[in-house]
Amino acid sequence: MKWLPRALAPMLPLLLLMLLRPAWAVEEDGYDLWLRYRPLEKTAQAQLRARATALVYAGGRGAIGATGEAAVAELRRGLEGMLGAAPALGASVKDGAIVLGTPATLPEAAALDLAPLGKEGYLVRSMRLRGHRVTLIAANSDIGLLYGAFAWLRAASTGAGVDFARELRSAPRLQLRVLNHWDNLNRTVERGYAGESIWNWWALPEIRDRRHVDYGRANASLGINGTVLNNVNSKPDILTAPWIAKAAAVADTLRPYGIKVYLSARFSTPLELGATKTADPLDPAVAAWWRAKADEIYKSIPDFGGFLVKANSEGQPGPQDYKRSHADGANMLAAALAPHQGVVMWRAFVYAHEKPDDRAKQAYDEFKPLDGTFAPNVLVQVKNGAIDFQPREPAHPLFGAMPNTPLMMEFQITKEYLGFATHTAYLGTMYEETLATDMGNGNGTVARILERGAGPKDQPRSLTGMAGVANIGSDRTWSGSHFDQANWYAYGRLAWDPRAGAREIAREWVAQTFSPDPRVTAPVVDLLMMSREAVVNYMTPLGLHHLMGTGHHHGPAPWVDDLGRPDWNPVYYHRAGRDGVGFDRTATGSDAVAQYAPELARRYADPRATPEPLLLWFHHLPWDYRMASGRTLWTELVARYDLGVAQAEDMRGRWLRLKPAIDARRHAEVLMALDKQLLEARWWRDACVAYFQSVSGLPLPAGAPAPERSLDHYKSLRFPYAPGNG
Amino acid sequence: MKWLPRALAPMLPLLLLMLLRPAWAVEEDGYDLWLRYRPLEKTAQAQLRARATALVYAGGRGAIGATGEAAVAELRRGLEGMLGAAPALGASVKDGAIVLGTPATLPEAAALDLAPLGKEGYLVRSMRLRGHRVTLIAANSDIGLLYGAFAWLRAASTGAGVDFARELRSAPRLQLRVLNHWDNLNRTVERGYAGESIWNWWALPEIRDRRHVDYGRANASLGINGTVLNNVNSKPDILTAPWIAKAAAVADTLRPYGIKVYLSARFSTPLELGATKTADPLDPAVAAWWRAKADEIYKSIPDFGGFLVKANSEGQPGPQDYKRSHADGANMLAAALAPHQGVVMWRAFVYAHEKPDDRAKQAYDEFKPLDGTFAPNVLVQVKNGAIDFQPREPAHPLFGAMPNTPLMMEFQITKEYLGFATHTAYLGTMYEETLATDMGNGNGTVARILERGAGPKDQPRSLTGMAGVANIGSDRTWSGSHFDQANWYAYGRLAWDPRAGAREIAREWVAQTFSPDPRVTAPVVDLLMMSREAVVNYMTPLGLHHLMGTGHHHGPAPWVDDLGRPDWNPVYYHRAGRDGVGFDRTATGSDAVAQYAPELARRYADPRATPEPLLLWFHHLPWDYRMASGRTLWTELVARYDLGVAQAEDMRGRWLRLKPAIDARRHAEVLMALDKQLLEARWWRDACVAYFQSVSGLPLPAGAPAPERSLDHYKSLRFPYAPGNG
Repeated sequence: MKWLPRALAPMLPLLLLMLLRPAWAVEEDGYDLWLRYRPLEKTAQAQLRARATALVYAGGRGAIGATGEAAVAELRRGLEGMLGAAPALGASVKDGAIVLGTPATLPEAAALDLAPLGKEGYLVRSMRLRGHRVTLIAANSDIGLLYGAFAWLRAASTGAGVDFARELRSAPRLQLRVLNHWDNLNRTVERGYAGESIWNWWALPEIRDRRHVDYGRANASLGINGTVLNNVNSKPDILTAPWIAKAAAVADTLRPYGIKVYLSARFSTPLELGATKTADPLDPAVAAWWRAKADEIYKSIPDFGGFLVKANSEGQPGPQDYKRSHADGANMLAAALAPHQGVVMWRAFVYAHEKPDDRAKQAYDEFKPLDGTFAPNVLVQVKNGAIDFQPREPAHPLFGAMPNTPLMMEFQITKEYLGFATHTAYLGTMYEETLATDMGNGNGTVARILERGAGPKDQPRSLTGMAGVANIGSDRTWSGSHFDQANWYAYGRLAWDPRAGAREIAREWVAQTFSPDPRVTAPVVDLLMMSREAVVNYMTPLGLHHLMGTGHHHGPAPWVDDLGRPDWNPVYYHRAGRDGVGFDRTATGSDAVAQYAPELARRYADPRATPEPLLLWFHHLPWDYRMASGRTLWTELVARYDLGVAQAEDMRGRWLRLKPAIDARRHAEVLMALDKQLLEARWWRDACVAYFQSVSGLPLPAGAPAPERSLDHYKSLRFPYAPGNG
Repeated sequence: MKWLPRALAPMLPLLLLMLLRPAWAVEEDGYDLWLRYRPLEKTAQAQLRARATALVYAGGRGAIGATGEAAVAELRRGLEGMLGAAPALGASVKDGAIVLGTPATLPEAAALDLAPLGKEGYLVRSMRLRGHRVTLIAANSDIGLLYGAFAWLRAASTGAGVDFARELRSAPRLQLRVLNHWDNLNRTVERGYAGESIWNWWALPEIRDRRHVDYGRANASLGINGTVLNNVNSKPDILTAPWIAKAAAVADTLRPYGIKVYLSARFSTPLELGATKTADPLDPAVAAWWRAKADEIYKSIPDFGGFLVKANSEGQPGPQDYKRSHADGANMLAAALAPHQGVVMWRAFVYAHEKPDDRAKQAYDEFKPLDGTFAPNVLVQVKNGAIDFQPREPAHPLFGAMPNTPLMMEFQITKEYLGFATHTAYLGTMYEETLATDMGNGNGTVARILERGAGPKDQPRSLTGMAGVANIGSDRTWSGSHFDQANWYAYGRLAWDPRAGAREIAREWVAQTFSPDPRVTAPVVDLLMMSREAVVNYMTPLGLHHLMGTGHHHGPAPWVDDLGRPDWNPVYYHRAGRDGVGFDRTATGSDAVAQYAPELARRYADPRATPEPLLLWFHHLPWDYRMASGRTLWTELVARYDLGVAQAEDMRGRWLRLKPAIDARRHAEVLMALDKQLLEARWWRDACVAYFQSVSGLPLPAGAPAPERSLDHYKSLRFPYAPGNG
């Protein structure tokens, strides 16, 4: 905090006041996320104070509901933090007041063209109201007001909006903005690297965790409006009465924040609970059971969101067990939920026991023929890429291929394949890369495809949505590390607006999370923006994928070739041999390129036209293939691994130089993580280079550092206690 | 906090200052434990300020080591919290100074008869020094100074010692005061109900958790000087190089707080790691492997404490696998550790596959014959009772039966059998009950037996110690609930002084944790003091034991009779039938009473002489047996169950009335737990009464409430996701 005293010197009284507090009480431990509301610099404080002289909820104290209360409480919390004091909720409009109003509570709001904002959008405008200069936060509903309050606080706390030259006007481009918790009922989290589940099922429903309120606040600040509480690898228990009561307690806590609760449903639930003799979706008894179950759930959770289903994938039961289609299964559940306005999110990540032709092709092969056959309250949830959340994948070919079915994006926020919570890898750039991919065929970008939903372009939109596999746990930082909070943030902001830019999102996050001072934001944003590419380089450069260790997915294991089925093995994906490396997905190989629109298919079919970062995803090329750089593929590959390590070193160096500008605890904690990341980056490089060298038989390129240890050493490493396998 | 403004009214400036802080920043979430150092009431503050005008480390800034730094930092932290400001560390003694000195750094300390305090004891005395009136904290070493600093802070913050009419002079009565973490390498905690392990093995050694510093502080405040990091059900991995490095990182953090790190060692480690062909303790290769391993550990952890071993118990490997004795096994390990002053803590909790005569007898049968055969650096660690940490057990017959072997007490702090972290059950009374039990034969109480250690009474003491199975986890409260912190506290204070009183310890804890105001301490202490007896009453009254659910040990299951071996079943322990109830451990039964000294054996052999709370532990009695109350056993049993529920209701009512006096968050959180406890108390009563009625065939006593649900309902309950089985 060395630079802070200087910046804060003019506000000595408040500073002295803070010095009188026990030092540890203000230590930054990350719990406050991007909602820290720390004291502003003096000038900004004076400006803000003049624009926060009063706080008025237009409907009056009597009309305020839980969501309105949350908006007012958040504004007060923010002002208390940034200014040292906040006005109480008052009734009379005066100069400098902040006024919250909807057309129902504030006649003047009706004139502001709020209809296009829909239920959730908001307008924040500096304007005259009843003769006074006020800041109006307007929306069509209280949840819009809450989102508007957060937008105003974001602007104020990042220094961006204190003078409000521009109005803030925004509405979400997607309807369902959902977190998927892969949280198990015993509180472990599959692919979770941030401690235990925040859902302490054992204690619920009687004992409610105050942390869930802060979870609601954080998500509402991003516009996230749904959360699936339990793992897609689900258990029948979650739909029994005791667990519905637990979920209802969580729903009660989250409701004021505009967040609906969903549950992952196991397709065979009635069968496994002994209530039916089959789980066949066309069996009337099965359908009746699900209808009754939906009715039961809605009695406890009147705004229950619906079911997320992983079926006929990785051993999960599903309609195909009864020779029925995914649509048969999804539609049966959808019929049970429809009377209550619930939805089914049906995952397209299918990955069955049979046919290891090319795993990348399976989802498209199974789902494209079903286009147009799903009920209107079903969304098909498609992962960003066709394999499984690798550090880099081309956009999934299903995007644009199912025009009559609403597709919901599934991103992974938790870093299963990108170094767990230890490695810094800002995923905003990865999400942006997928969302900005033009899928051809006149469909436009993935973002546009998601926004459009199903049906003809000129018709009212169907359901739309985006899902993010949460990186949230009981860790004090929520996400397992300070920088991983940025991925939660970026996901949420992109779910609200899939066309937003990763860099601007990073800037917003850094400004709120560390400091709005450009001496902090600029270098930290640069660090974040380079971070994911660094991980790609030291793990899986040039389109390589699935080189990681078995089961836990930690560390390099490109040599693994002995697992139960071919497409579990890294060698299946890289296909390295004396002759070259890479997966031929052109017509001479698996022809996965044919799943893309012709324009994209042509590009991906030609190694010269394929973007170099995806080269070995689509092509098997000889080691002496000449790259754009003029280097051979082998030399380029090794250079990329080296570059990744150099980038990890660079990131560490950049952070080290920021020491005077960052609070001591978080600086030290991030630095420890970057130290570990650098060790593991070297390990990835050395193990992969040693392995590919053993396969190519080629000498190391001149100047390339030799691997530190032998290939046998890297092969011998075991990680039986890795997190996330729970 | 409603009463606080009144009490604090005179200190308005500071109060205003606190009001200016964002409200949530001061919210009590339990993390600070009993080291909260909140602002004192004004009069106490003035008194204290006059006695804390300066802070002097007698050796001077240059001589101060990490432990001295910790003492000074804690004093400053405490003063900042209680007074709003603290003096910096200075050099010159003046009136009102706090001076820390050892005979080496302060010549005047040499005159104070410090020798009897040993290395760890301390003296805090208000006295004249070099013409000034000072508070002297004196000890023979820096760790003594740290303990003295904590003692002074405890006195100051509880209002007890601000005027120091009496000096504080104390030395520990036991040498090893150790926590046993049953923490697994994957971060689950066996029988842990407070989240994950605080040892994030995956992140270590590079990423160190700031929380470990606070763990060190909290334990040092109690005098705990050792911690076994991993579960007694151990894995070979813990003794491999990567894990030794992780343990060394923890040891580095804890060292300044006087806490040694120990590890649980799996007896078959060298065999399982493939380093030897056997784990036979008499095999020279095995002994050599352990010697080399000890040398390796001490290179990284020079003050490593030693090994804790669970051998030949519940499936763990051990020397008996090779027809060797426990002493053979322990002494082999002890020989490896002896050159480094390490110790072996060898558990007497043996519980083998064979002979279900009476499980309560096994430890005595196996260990008593080995008395006097253990190496001097071995302690035999004996659970407080002969079964397994039941809500009430008679003291273990081994205490007093092995005069030539140092016995170490093993208490369980985590509440495996007392309602997990949900139920409030202050264990201070339970520990006190065991420690105060006179074992007869002239041995005196269990406390005296522990303090004496091995060998003739007039000789220098051997090793002595106490172990507590920790209730610590990643939960924000550390212990899974606010009141469970009291059990950590009580254990630590009793390990320092096994003769201390549970009520006074509770008072100390409440005063520091909630408020020193007698309007808070008196009712909260009363609540704590009744709490464990309430649990005994609604779970296992009158000496019943082991009635809990299978595996997870949650809830009632007295009906279970179908497990793999007889002594896994509750019916084995209560032996209820038409004829009566209870385990006959007299000469007509298993004759376990014969393991006690004659005096005690005679008492336990006679139902009229046996304390009623232990009646059914030792006797099988007819349902119409006439109790001291004049009621029949059946009527008394049901009355006890009812009483337990009434007590749980009473506790809840008492807490509810304290609402104005307790900060809002903790009041609400404790209340939710008490609500759940009351529900579960009723469940215990109803299920047990329904079951025993089904066995006795007797009508419910007049006035006794009928069980709410059928016995079949209670039998049908399943808890597959209960915590603590990890």
